[in-house]
Amino acid sequence: MRIELDEAVGMLKASDDILILCHRNPDGDTLGSGFALLRALKAMGKRARLYCDDIIPAKFSYLYEGLEEQSFEERLIVSVDVAERKLLGEKGNELYGERVDLSLDHHGTSRLFAKKTFCEPDSASACEILYGVIKGLGIEITAEIASCLYTGVSTDTGCFRYSNVTPRTHRIAAELIEKGADHARINVKMFETKSMNNIMLERMCLESLESYGEGKIAVITVTKAMLDECKTDKSAIDAIKPLTRQIEGVEIGLTVKQENDGKTGVSVRTGEGYDASLICAHFGGGGHERAAGCELRCTPEEAKNTVVSYILEEVLSKGGR
Amino acid sequence: MRIELDEAVGMLKASDDILILCHRNPDGDTLGSGFALLRALKAMGKRARLYCDDIIPAKFSYLYEGLEEQSFEERLIVSVDVAERKLLGEKGNELYGERVDLSLDHHGTSRLFAKKTFCEPDSASACEILYGVIKGLGIEITAEIASCLYTGVSTDTGCFRYSNVTPRTHRIAAELIEKGADHARINVKMFETKSMNNIMLERMCLESLESYGEGKIAVITVTKAMLDECKTDKSAIDAIKPLTRQIEGVEIGLTVKQENDGKTGVSVRTGEGYDASLICAHFGGGGHERAAGCELRCTPEEAKNTVVSYILEEVLSKGGR
Repeated sequence: MRIELDEAVGMLKASDDILILCHRNPDGDTLGSGFALLRALKAMGKRARLYCDDIIPAKFSYLYEGLEEQSFEERLIVSVDVAERKLLGEKGNELYGERVDLSLDHHGTSRLFAKKTFCEPDSASACEILYGVIKGLGIEITAEIASCLYTGVSTDTGCFRYSNVTPRTHRIAAELIEKGADHARINVKMFETKSMNNIMLERMCLESLESYGEGKIAVITVTKAMLDECKTDKSAIDAIKPLTRQIEGVEIGLTVKQENDGKTGVSVRTGEGYDASLICAHFGGGGHERAAGCELRCTPEEAKNTVVSYILEEVLSKGGR
Repeated sequence: MRIELDEAVGMLKASDDILILCHRNPDGDTLGSGFALLRALKAMGKRARLYCDDIIPAKFSYLYEGLEEQSFEERLIVSVDVAERKLLGEKGNELYGERVDLSLDHHGTSRLFAKKTFCEPDSASACEILYGVIKGLGIEITAEIASCLYTGVSTDTGCFRYSNVTPRTHRIAAELIEKGADHARINVKMFETKSMNNIMLERMCLESLESYGEGKIAVITVTKAMLDECKTDKSAIDAIKPLTRQIEGVEIGLTVKQENDGKTGVSVRTGEGYDASLICAHFGGGGHERAAGCELRCTPEEAKNTVVSYILEEVLSKGGR
C-alpha cells in the first residue's frame, strides 16, 4: 500500500529496534540512505542496525565511521532504495523479503513489496526522500548525516550531471553542504578514483575500439580473457559502457561482452533519434530508449558483425528509429 | 579600483554600445558570462557585441544561437572572467587592454587592470557573479540566459565536483534550471564528449602507464610521435594530467611530456601530504601544492628516471613533504 511522508515518519517515530535493509551490490544511494536513517534513529535514542547482502566496498567506510553495531530482535523492518524483493539479495530476500514493513524508495518501477511504501519517483535519489524523512523526524542534520545524504544525492545523479536532477536536488545539496557535508572529498572518492585493474581494462577496451558507418557506430569488445587478465568483474564493464557514446559523432555505441556457455551480450547506447530498445528487441532483448541490451548465442566476433550489419542496413540507412 | 555590485550595475544601466571581452582560449565560464550579459543588455534595448581573440569552439554554439552581430563604436568596454590584461590575447590586449572600463571577475589573483573591477573571489565561477549582475539590471532570466549562466556555473566547478562549490552555487543552479537552463544536454556537451583523436591519445597514455614505489607513483609518458599520430595538441594533454592521480593508491602522479629543443616537461599531481610545488622546485619549476610542473633538459626517459629517483629517495622515503 502506498503511503505519504507523514505516515512513513509516524511509523518510524512510533517504533524501536529498527532493521534497515539496503539493496545488493550496494551503491552510494542505498548506503547513504541507510546510514543517514541509522544515524537519525540513534540520535532519537532508538536501537537500529543495517543489513546488506553484499560486502560494503571500502570506499564507503566514512558512511559508518563511529557507529557501533547493535544486536536486537527487529520490531520494524525498513528498506531504502529497494524497488523489488529480489534486490535484497538471495539471503536478504529469504530472511526478510516477506516481512518488510516500510519501503522508502524513488523508483517508478517499485513493486510495492512492503506492507507500506513511500515512493516519490520524481526524486533523483532515495537520499532526497530520506532528507525529507529525517526532517520529518525532527532530527538535526549533523555533518555526518549530511555526508551520508550528499553521497546518494551526488552518486545517483552522476554528480548533478543527469537529466533526473531537479531544482530541489540542488537546493538539498546546498543545505547539506551548509550542514557540513564533506562534498569535495566525497566526490573525489566516488568519481575520481579508479583501481589499477579497472584502468587496465579501460586500456584494453580502448585498444579494441572500432568504428563503422562513417563513425556513427562505435564498438568495444570485452572477452573473458581480458576480464581474467585484469582481474575485474561485471561492475568494471558497467563503467565502460557509456564510453562508446561519448565519442564525438557516434550515434550508436555497442559494448560486446563474451558471456559463459558460448553466449555474447551486447549493450547498446544511443543518441537522440535512435532507439536502443528497438535495436535490442530485434535480437530478443530490451531496455530503454537510450540504453538497452540483448544476448546472442555466438562468439563476440559474430555477435558484433550481426548487430553492426543490422544497424547499418536497417537503422542508419533509414535515418534512425 | 574595486567597486561593489551596485556600482557595476549602475555603469551598465547608464551606458549603451557596450563591448564585452572574453579571455583567450575561451572556456564555458568566460563565454557563458559574456553571452548572458550580451543577451541581458539586448533585452534592455542596448547595443552590445562580444570580442574574443580566439575562435569559439563549435560545442559552445548554443550560447549565441539566434543572436545577430551588431557593429558600432564601443562606448563602454567590459571584460568577463579576465584576471589580467594579457589574458585578452595578443590582439585583444593591443586593441582594448588599456581601455577596459569594467572588469567582472572571480579570480583572487585579479590584477585590477580595468578602470573599475567588481571581483568576488568566493564565487566558484564568473557566471555566479553575472547572475547577480543580471538580477541587478532587473532583467528577466530567460531560458537562453539561464543556459549561458548554467554553462559557466557547471564547467568551472567540474560539474559541482570541486571544493570551490558553495551552497550558493547550488542555489543558483536550482534557479537556472527552474528558468529553463538545458542542464542535462549542456553537461553531455561539456563533460561527456571526446574526439576520437583524444581517445586515441588516452589509449596510448594508458599504454605508457608505469608505476613505482609500490604503486605510490604513477607515470604517463607523452612523446611528440604520440601527439603527431593522434593529431592532437596541448589541450588534450591537460585532460590527461589528472589521470595518474585518479588511480587507487597513487600519491604522486607524473605526466612526462616531450617538448621541443630536447627538453621534457614534467607535470606533477599529488595527494594530501605530498607537496607538488616542492618536488618541482627541486628541478627549477613551481606551482601549487596539489599540481605543479618543471622542465628538464633531457629525453623523456631520462627526465622520468631523474624525477622518479628523486621522489623515491627524497620524498617517499621521508614520509612526504
